[in-house]
This record gives sequence, structure tokens and C-alpha cells, in this order.
Amino acid sequence: MSQPIEKTEVQNLGDMPAEEFRRHGHELIDWIADYFQHIEDLPVLAQVEPGDLKAQLPATPPARGESMEAILADIDRLIVPALTHWSHPSFFAYFATSTSAPGIFGELLSAAFDVKSMLWRTSPASTELEEVTLDWLRQMLGLDAGMSGFIYDTASVSSKHAIAAAREGVELRIREEGMSGRKDLPLLRVYASDQAHSSIDKGIITLGLGQKSLRKIPVDNQFRMNAKALAEAIDEDKRNGIIPFCIVATVGTTSTSSIDPVRELVEIGEQHVMWLHVDAAYGGSAAIVPEMRYVLDGCERADSVVLNPHKWLFTPFDCSVLYCRHLDLLRRAFSLVPEYLRTPEQEKVRSGSDYGVQLGRRFRALKLWMIIRYFGHEGLVARIREHCRLAQMFASWVNESPDWELMAPTPFALVCFRAIHADKQANLDELNEAIMHGANATGKAFLSHTKLNDKLTLRLSIGNIRTTKRHVKQVWDILNEQLRQHTS
Amino acid sequence: MSQPIEKTEVQNLGDMPAEEFRRHGHELIDWIADYFQHIEDLPVLAQVEPGDLKAQLPATPPARGESMEAILADIDRLIVPALTHWSHPSFFAYFATSTSAPGIFGELLSAAFDVKSMLWRTSPASTELEEVTLDWLRQMLGLDAGMSGFIYDTASVSSKHAIAAAREGVELRIREEGMSGRKDLPLLRVYASDQAHSSIDKGIITLGLGQKSLRKIPVDNQFRMNAKALAEAIDEDKRNGIIPFCIVATVGTTSTSSIDPVRELVEIGEQHVMWLHVDAAYGGSAAIVPEMRYVLDGCERADSVVLNPHKWLFTPFDCSVLYCRHLDLLRRAFSLVPEYLRTPEQEKVRSGSDYGVQLGRRFRALKLWMIIRYFGHEGLVARIREHCRLAQMFASWVNESPDWELMAPTPFALVCFRAIHADKQANLDELNEAIMHGANATGKAFLSHTKLNDKLTLRLSIGNIRTTKRHVKQVWDILNEQLRQHTS
Repeated sequence: MSQPIEKTEVQNLGDMPAEEFRRHGHELIDWIADYFQHIEDLPVLAQVEPGDLKAQLPATPPARGESMEAILADIDRLIVPALTHWSHPSFFAYFATSTSAPGIFGELLSAAFDVKSMLWRTSPASTELEEVTLDWLRQMLGLDAGMSGFIYDTASVSSKHAIAAAREGVELRIREEGMSGRKDLPLLRVYASDQAHSSIDKGIITLGLGQKSLRKIPVDNQFRMNAKALAEAIDEDKRNGIIPFCIVATVGTTSTSSIDPVRELVEIGEQHVMWLHVDAAYGGSAAIVPEMRYVLDGCERADSVVLNPHKWLFTPFDCSVLYCRHLDLLRRAFSLVPEYLRTPEQEKVRSGSDYGVQLGRRFRALKLWMIIRYFGHEGLVARIREHCRLAQMFASWVNESPDWELMAPTPFALVCFRAIHADKQANLDELNEAIMHGANATGKAFLSHTKLNDKLTLRLSIGNIRTTKRHVKQVWDILNEQLRQHTS
Repeated sequence: MSQPIEKTEVQNLGDMPAEEFRRHGHELIDWIADYFQHIEDLPVLAQVEPGDLKAQLPATPPARGESMEAILADIDRLIVPALTHWSHPSFFAYFATSTSAPGIFGELLSAAFDVKSMLWRTSPASTELEEVTLDWLRQMLGLDAGMSGFIYDTASVSSKHAIAAAREGVELRIREEGMSGRKDLPLLRVYASDQAHSSIDKGIITLGLGQKSLRKIPVDNQFRMNAKALAEAIDEDKRNGIIPFCIVATVGTTSTSSIDPVRELVEIGEQHVMWLHVDAAYGGSAAIVPEMRYVLDGCERADSVVLNPHKWLFTPFDCSVLYCRHLDLLRRAFSLVPEYLRTPEQEKVRSGSDYGVQLGRRFRALKLWMIIRYFGHEGLVARIREHCRLAQMFASWVNESPDWELMAPTPFALVCFRAIHADKQANLDELNEAIMHGANATGKAFLSHTKLNDKLTLRLSIGNIRTTKRHVKQVWDILNEQLRQHTS
């Protein structure tokens, strides 16, 4: 291939001509509007086999440029069939999430501005809009003004940074001296419930603390961390010369959306001078609803709280917000300003790169600001409330049916349930797995599962902005039909 | 505010109506086309003071939704003046980068699809398009087929993951046992030149290795790592019971774009069974140009190479590619599959979440695929070649002028230079700083600086798709005008 590249003269440098940009841009906007209008004609879960898409793509790159027409045609022909449609109103798996029009517009503008928000001067708009928008959101959530917000990409990364700040707070010179080759360093310990998200394990592994540093605390019969067990574990560890330095509470666990007793945990954390991090990635957003503000009870004494607007505030992925009471510690853990990044104003402003691993940062505040303005606090509340109402409705159907049972409480918009059947007691796991795969294979709905007390449990998560009662009724009918098929 | 929220009934749930989406979408596309057409009327570096934007934004969030018209008007009125325009053809600071139309379209579609590419089934298209597109790019770069690619957000994160994989390869059970509370663990050491990017320091700090774990190796008079000094440092460390496990070479350092002698470093790495990571975040992209392929010489024996399409392949931020010869080690370092993420196909497919801290991942392959197809290998080559030609042209002007001097070689499209003046020998740093701030204050160009051998040095980086000879000539005139003003 190198021959033609050496010889060909590409005449027009620069970007796509403006008129072509307008024409294809308009087409794409219409394409997306059509996509949303007709998304229910598509299967939610991609009905392709591993390797199907790869087999249809050329093995070598194109030497010469192709027309945008050809590229867009391939998006229809190749990409869309290989997508699992997270924007489909019958996406009920994992945590159902949602993009939205003002968020898409925010991403579109952000891709055009293309700022790297590493220093104030490389994008004053990004730095200051982030501070203001996150303060708006803080007020909506009812968090106190001692909490400052910062946007990362995902909750995994937010939590990892929170634990890193906690580690920095231990005052053992880990930033400078590290942890290898040190005979003076006792085992450092983090505590989380056995229902905490795997990102906590991963964060601890990444930070070099290792899996041994994470002690999993058992939960009560509603999947909430047992505070007494936590207190005992810390006492025991201290007696053994271990340094307990961080507690991770969860508001909305991934399996069941259970809520740890943050108030009780905060007491324990304060008693031992430990960092209390709250993983509210899923559940936190619900606190913008006045009657659900209680879900963040106790956070007025927490050290950090993460929540994901890309989960339940209609924000296109990615956008995770860490609220932190000690940005100074985060900064001490991560700030490094080489000569080429020094600016005259640096003492007066916030520099995004001071607070994390990433140097450049996308202009994510823009989409969140546009979403809060377009829907308003009320509009966001109404949508979250409706999702919770739909989940309660589904839970009541489960509850009232002899064929199904609830497996956990439903504090948010996630229902944990499973089919029960007199003749199949021995293999209810198989039955429920078959029902799930059968339902997903229809293309009409997509659910996922978990295990609770060793029992395979189905999860119905409602979070898409397009989901209505009709979709919830439809998946209920599909599930019952699958149950009939697998028990008759 | 909670009163109206409790009482108001929001009638229309769901997203923005389709017709409104089409109308505002078309407006936005035209707005962006106009923005690019008239971007030269805007100052490159935002001419605002810290706090200016914040002061103009409401301190509390809107209770009720606002019209998209009002939001877009505020983008014109408030956001644009507070932006530093990375898309401006006279952006010459840091590493000049570039978004492009096909990349913007890719981001637009990605925001609509909103997939979280954590498992194959949550987005087969994202998983498989990533594999294919990165294999295309690998071929374009001339990297061998032993290298598999993976997309992260930034080079800081890519390099951190590479070093984490190297740490996992040490076989000291750091994932399981961690590094605290271990009297058996010798000091682990990473080596990089004193010109390596600060992200290497940050990655090592994050991983719990600490700054002490990074030994900085001096450079030669062209800012390239001194291989002999590296070999001696490793020998010395080994004699002292330290475990050397990773070398980070740089292809295109941030200060001067110097290229470490990768071939020589690879020899040393192999001799001591160390991981050789190449930070080619900036310089790597140039290897798609046949006559510049040599910049990755030696990488056929490296363990990992990072390069950033968002730096010099016209890809909107963020998109960083890690090529790695040992994805199995990356996977061993990071894979954690809780029950709720298990799928029947997981043994047959690649799951994005297995290879890093992030669980969810954006569909970034889409924009890169669209860019490679739209411009073709030839089109990308022609643009990078032109940037290098413009940089050589500027360097020749510096070289031929008695008022300026080059401070480093120009292997890519970055020129390091400074003004010299017979009467100002004592304070050339001040003179050059004044010239830089004066040039930036014109709004007609934006440059940044570094220090080389303790001398303040100006940096002119060419990388924007819109930059032409006219813009380079203009900044040269501005610099000479500033020199006159500050020396007359």
C-alpha cells in the first residue's frame, strides 16, 4: 500500500467542505430522529453471533478516502444490526440508562469545540461551567455546601479517586515513598459490603492495595451492610495492627439497589477517623425527588459521594460526578504541574488536571448544563418519579401473582424477582435462566440477572426516558408467556 | 424550591419531541458549520478573567424547563467567549490537535446510541469495530500483528494500564496481596527519561508505587534518553536489591518531541526481562507516513505502545489507543466478573471491562473508523506530511533569522525556539515570556512554553486540520512584532 501513498497528491487538505458538512449533518440529525421514532422495530439485544460484524468488515484499511454516503450506508447495513439498543424503551437490563436530546446536542457541540479541559486557560468555559452546574446539582440533591463536585468518566474512576484521596489522607507518604520495599507499612484496609460493586475491588487492586485490603462485610436480609459487623471487623483489624482507613457505603447496590445505613456507618467512620465514601452511582440521582431525598441521609457527614448523571439523569455516557469534602486531599494525591503546564493564573483558578489521573478532560459539563436547563428540576423529578411508579406497578404484579415472587425490596426503579413453580422447585435457577434468555431472544425486551442468596434472580431496571407503562406491561406479558412455554 | 416540584404536574414525559429535535438539530449543525467558517474572527485564547463566566450564571438551578432557543442563545452569549478555541487554525500551544467532521458525526451517533461497551453483548458493534479499526490502524503504523489494540480515554490512562500490566507480570501477587503490610516486597522500579511526560509519574503514584519507584534517566543533548545511563542505573538498582520491572520510552516528548532510542532500550529491557512501554501519544501517529515509519523503530520488540488519535489523527477528544503484546496480562490485572455481568458467550468474545478500571466504555471506535474511511490512509498521510512541512518551514525562518534560535531538533511538527537579543542576554527568559504573553493577548495565535536546560523556550505545535501556511506566516509576523515592541 505504501506506493500509492508516496505518489498520490491529495489536493484538498483541511476538513470536509462546509456545504458537505451541512448536508450530511442534516441527514444525520434526521437519521437519529428516525432512529428514535422507529427504535421499537429493532431488537433490543443485538441478535448477532460473535464475529458476525468482523466477518463483514474489510481486513485492511482503505487507501483512499470514501464518501460519507458510503460510510452512512454501512452504519445502517452493518453497525445498527450489531448494536444492543440502550436507547430502546424496553431495555431493562443492568441499570437501564438514557441519553436525551439536549444531552446529544451537548455532545455534538463538545465534539466541535474539542477542548481539553486540563487547565483553566485551556477552557475557562469548561472549568467554570462544571463548577456552577455541579453546584446546581448539589442543591437539587440536597447535599450541603461543603461538598465540591468534579466530573470523571465513570463511577469506577470516581470511586478509585476517592479511595486514593483517602489513602493520601493516611499520612504515610505513599505518594512519595510508595508501598513497595517498605517494611514499616502495616496492612491498610478498606471496608465495603459484600453487595458493593466490583469497581471497588478494581479500584483497590489498581491502587496497589490488593484484594486483601478489601474486607467484605455481610449484609442483613435486605442486602444492607450490617453496621455492627463492620464495627467488629474494624476493632478486630486494629487489634491485629491493621490500619482501617476507608469505608465504602452503597446507595443503590447493583444487584438489588439496596441502601446501606449511611448514618450508622458515618458514626463508625468518625469514631475511627476513616474516610466514608458513598457509592450512589445509581441511587444518588433519585435524591433530586423531594420525597426521595432521604436516600442520601447521612451524606452530610460523608467524605465523598459519587453519582452518575449518565445512569439516571438522561445524560449521554460518560458523566460521573464525585462530590468531595476534601478536594485539597484529592489535589495533594494527584497534582503534578510540569513547566509546560504552568500559567500565570494557576493560583487563582481550578485546574482539572490537578484532581485526577487524566490530564485532558472532555467538556462534559456542557451536556449536563443543557439537560438541567431543558428539563428543569421539575422535569427531571417527574421522569424519575414515573420510573419509580412503573417499578412499583411491576412489583405489585409480581407480588399478586402465584407464579412469581419478589426477591428484594424496590426502593428505586429496579425490581428483583423470579418465577416460582410447584413442579420445578429443584431447578428454579434453570427455569428463570431459560425465561430470561427466551425473553431476550424475542428482541422485544432485554433483562439481566443476579444471584441473591445463591438463587438466580431476574432484574427489571427502569431508567430509559422513553419507557412507559405499555413497555412494562409488554415485558410482563413476555415473561409470563416464557413461563408458560418452559413449564407446560 | 421543593414546593412547586411537589405540586406541579409535568404533562409530557419522554424526550424532546421529534420535530423539535429535527429543527434544533439542523440549527446546531448550521451553527457548527458557521463556527468553523468564522472561527478566525474569534480570539484563540479566551480573553476572559477567572470568574467572568461564573459571575454571569445563575447561582441556583432552574425549577422549570427552558426552551432550547434560550439555551442555544446562552451558548453564543456566554460559552463561546469563555472558550479557548482548540479548533482554531492558529492554536499552536501544547500539542495542537484537531477534531474533524467525520469524527464529529461519529460522536453525534455515539451519543444517540449511548452504548456502554462493557461486555460483548452490551454492544457487539463497539467491541468488534474496535478490534477491526485498531487492526487497520496497526497496519497503517507498520506495527507487527503481535500487537492488539485497546481504546482508553487518554494516554495517561493507557500508560497507567500498561504499567499495571507490567506490575502484574512481576509475579509477586500484588493483585491479591497488595503492597501494604508486606515485609517481603523489595522496591519495584520503573525507568523513564527526565523528559518523559508527567502522566508517567502520575500513573506510578496512582498504582501505589510512589514517586520513589520512578527513576529518571538523563538525556543527551538532543533530549533523548541516554541508554548507557539507563543500563548503569538498572545494574546499580539490582545490586541494591531493587526490582527493575518497566522501562518507559518516549516517541515525541512533550517539551521537544524528541525520540528515545527505542531499539537500544529494547535490548536493555530484554536483557533484564523488563516491560518496555513506549509513550508515542504524540509522535506515534506520524508512523502512518511511509517516510516517518522509522519513528516506531524498535516497537516490534516493545511490550506496549500508546498513541492518541485525538492528538494527531483528527479524532475528537477522547481516544487513546494502547497496543499491547500481552493482553492476557492486562486481563489478569483487571478482569473481575461479578455474577450480574456473566453471559453465556463470555469465553468466546472480548469484554471491554476485562482490560481496565472502567466498566462502561464509550463507543469510540465509531468515530475513528469513520475518520479513517472518510480521509483514507492517503488523506491522513497528506495532512500529517503538510504539518511537518509547515513546521520545517517555520524552523527554517527561525534558523535564518539573527533574532531567533532553535532550541531543539524538529522531528515532527513541533518547533522549539526563542528570541535572542544582544542587549538582553541577561534576561532572555523574561523577554521570551513577554513575547509569548504578548502574542497570546492578540487573540490571533496561541503558543505555550517549556524550559530546556533552564532556558525558557517557546513551542510552536502544528496539528490542526485547518492550519495552513498563511497561519504559520501570521504567527511568525506576530512574534517578530512582539520582539520589536519588547526590545525597542
